[in-house]
Amino acid sequence: MKHLDALVAELGDDVVVTDPDRMDKYRWDRANDPDAGVPLAVVRAGSTEDVQAALRFATAHGIPVVPRGAGSGLSGGASAVSGCLVVSTERMTTITVDPVTRTAVVQPGLLNAQVKAAAAEHDLWYPPDPSSYEICSIGGNIATNAGGLCCVKYGVTTDYVLGLTVVLADGTVVRLGGARLKDVAGLSLTKLFVGSEGTLGIVTEIVLRLIPKQRPPATLVATFSTLDDATNTVLAISRRLRPSMLEFMDGPTVNAVEDMTKMGLDREAAAMLIVQSDEPAGHAGTECELMASLCATNNATEVFTTADAAEGEAFVVARRLAIPAVERTGTLLLEDVGVPLPQLGALVSGIAGISADRAVTIAVIAHAGDGNTHPLIVFDPADPDMAERAQKAYGEVMELAMSLGGTITGEHGVGRLKRPWLADYLGPEVLALNRKIKDALDPQGILNPGSGF
Amino acid sequence: MKHLDALVAELGDDVVVTDPDRMDKYRWDRANDPDAGVPLAVVRAGSTEDVQAALRFATAHGIPVVPRGAGSGLSGGASAVSGCLVVSTERMTTITVDPVTRTAVVQPGLLNAQVKAAAAEHDLWYPPDPSSYEICSIGGNIATNAGGLCCVKYGVTTDYVLGLTVVLADGTVVRLGGARLKDVAGLSLTKLFVGSEGTLGIVTEIVLRLIPKQRPPATLVATFSTLDDATNTVLAISRRLRPSMLEFMDGPTVNAVEDMTKMGLDREAAAMLIVQSDEPAGHAGTECELMASLCATNNATEVFTTADAAEGEAFVVARRLAIPAVERTGTLLLEDVGVPLPQLGALVSGIAGISADRAVTIAVIAHAGDGNTHPLIVFDPADPDMAERAQKAYGEVMELAMSLGGTITGEHGVGRLKRPWLADYLGPEVLALNRKIKDALDPQGILNPGSGF
Repeated sequence: MKHLDALVAELGDDVVVTDPDRMDKYRWDRANDPDAGVPLAVVRAGSTEDVQAALRFATAHGIPVVPRGAGSGLSGGASAVSGCLVVSTERMTTITVDPVTRTAVVQPGLLNAQVKAAAAEHDLWYPPDPSSYEICSIGGNIATNAGGLCCVKYGVTTDYVLGLTVVLADGTVVRLGGARLKDVAGLSLTKLFVGSEGTLGIVTEIVLRLIPKQRPPATLVATFSTLDDATNTVLAISRRLRPSMLEFMDGPTVNAVEDMTKMGLDREAAAMLIVQSDEPAGHAGTECELMASLCATNNATEVFTTADAAEGEAFVVARRLAIPAVERTGTLLLEDVGVPLPQLGALVSGIAGISADRAVTIAVIAHAGDGNTHPLIVFDPADPDMAERAQKAYGEVMELAMSLGGTITGEHGVGRLKRPWLADYLGPEVLALNRKIKDALDPQGILNPGSGF
Repeated sequence: MKHLDALVAELGDDVVVTDPDRMDKYRWDRANDPDAGVPLAVVRAGSTEDVQAALRFATAHGIPVVPRGAGSGLSGGASAVSGCLVVSTERMTTITVDPVTRTAVVQPGLLNAQVKAAAAEHDLWYPPDPSSYEICSIGGNIATNAGGLCCVKYGVTTDYVLGLTVVLADGTVVRLGGARLKDVAGLSLTKLFVGSEGTLGIVTEIVLRLIPKQRPPATLVATFSTLDDATNTVLAISRRLRPSMLEFMDGPTVNAVEDMTKMGLDREAAAMLIVQSDEPAGHAGTECELMASLCATNNATEVFTTADAAEGEAFVVARRLAIPAVERTGTLLLEDVGVPLPQLGALVSGIAGISADRAVTIAVIAHAGDGNTHPLIVFDPADPDMAERAQKAYGEVMELAMSLGGTITGEHGVGRLKRPWLADYLGPEVLALNRKIKDALDPQGILNPGSGF
């Protein structure tokens, strides 16, 4: 394509990749969308200016653009569209930490784990911790307003974003917010771009708020013989205490993790909770004791506590292994529904009902303290009937969550996979409001078409 | 006006006030803008439906609308415009607290202090605490993304807003977010409305996140003989510790407060810091001791610490009295500039320079740990030359803050008073982006014209 030559000439053929073999890995994210298209080119941006050039080119020629971080997304938000430019920020990985302001200026391609590591060098902490933190980029975290395990106490990505540099659809660069802890001049545009899934612009620089490093946590692990006992315990803890982690795994998940790790988990348990307290020394233990007594009151079959952070971490690792462990048993449809906390029990037991009705395994893990669950629907793609039942269950889980006042996606994003349910979830007025803002900022609709709203 | 009769007929003449005497108090907020206009009518809304009716009427007739909470704003954002509808939410004051989800559903007219009190009944806490918390409404707090004293550790209003019901310019009602701790379906519209100063819609219901009640804090008060010693202490504390309050008052402020309270403050001090730690029992004292040693290292002339919360509160009250105390010495132009923390010393000494150059008293109080200062420019309106010098100083303080990488408003909002400086602060690209969103949501421009951006 002649016009593509101009972009190659401007940015160089190391930045603008058109070789089909080299482009292949940029077509998919972890949702493995079978309908992912073949891009026209991949722009491996090294700077804000590279992104600007790509977007000016795309606007001039009406070409769709799919922004891409590390490609670890679970909703298909970075699946390529045929004939698009994929704009990858993977090469943009600088970070500067200011320990006095307790902020970091970060490029979007840096991995979440690398942000944490750079902060830790100054005894500081960037809390949001998706289970994929070692392989997901901070830019992708911004795009999806990513959550994680510590969010129950420490909040989600948007709570830590003070400023953004964004390239808009037409190539205009805007610098929003900055290293100021308070700033109310003009609309809260920084927050609007967080969670916008690449549909409003491409983030090229981020100012993050950091907090002092987390204290070593005490850990509690408890098992239950019924789902209700486990979810009732979650409510009892939330009503009185403030754990820094409050995770849930159901029986099928516990068994898949035990198959993988042989760490001696209770295969008979209907559910297991992994809870942490990072109150100061002396107090974390006390909070853990209180939580242990709440587990006992709610009929826990076993309760284990440890003040040893390394011993506790082994259980957190087990929790993080849940998705890969269940993935060994079949192909997954990965859900991300959330409900107001008092509805957690109804959601979890309702999902068990859907699993029975559709005769497919649904292994449930949850950031229980946030009411945010990840039902993992397991199926064999070689069995078309089962695949269809799994797809039906996928929709039914979202419909169940909505009927309980919940959301179709708590932290993974709408991407391509959840788009069919979004209009129902938002309702016509809110969908129209989303559209108005999209149309105002991207009138040609070139940014991540088919993804988000 | 015949068409107004229709609105009166729809809502009743207790809701739609047209009597000039009764309307008078709705013309001004605490900025006392001399150019405040005379409204066509005041709608004392009692429900979302009342606000809807008012906005449908305003859209049909192209009438400007000024949303109003408690009228405690300091930037003139609730000053009436001639011929406008003032839509007051003062009568909308219900609250429901859910202690399990740790959320509250609140109407906008409730005062911040009433929200705190309702949460406290369940041992919960709504942190944001503007100094005016006893007289400012939660709706106004949402409109300005209000801050306060505890924000240095606990964040600002937007960090606690999970959901909003908003009436748009044309009367459409949208329900955004809700009592879900994580939700990423669709754009982050909840956050967009926080801080929008009534320019995008009128908030009629708010879902707030609450946290467990604050522990009783330990308090430190320190005085310094130079401004630099005080601001260097702020940086030294911020680099290592996480105080739950870190406030600054300069010499003129200390003297004004001492004139009012006779509590024995040091009139010779160039600056005073009031610092709190709410770490758990045993640890707050330890953090206070560390802070005391940092004060000593930075040449504090006196350091006082107390673990007695009531004794500490007396100093916090003194800090909250600063504005009324300085107000007794003359008419105020109240500033709200913020800078990145490392620039705090340059800002404070630069303001002292402006005070000397313009020969007007500028008393400086600051949420020092956020880099957010409130210079109070004192003048005698009967002295035209002095009034002009005060006005010049007002602009120069904002220009100084901008030159240091800071903002023209940290927590009060742009309102009408700061609008002349906003374009310079945002720059043309960001201003245009604000405008695009405003035009998309309020194409007639009826919502709070002349305020905000």
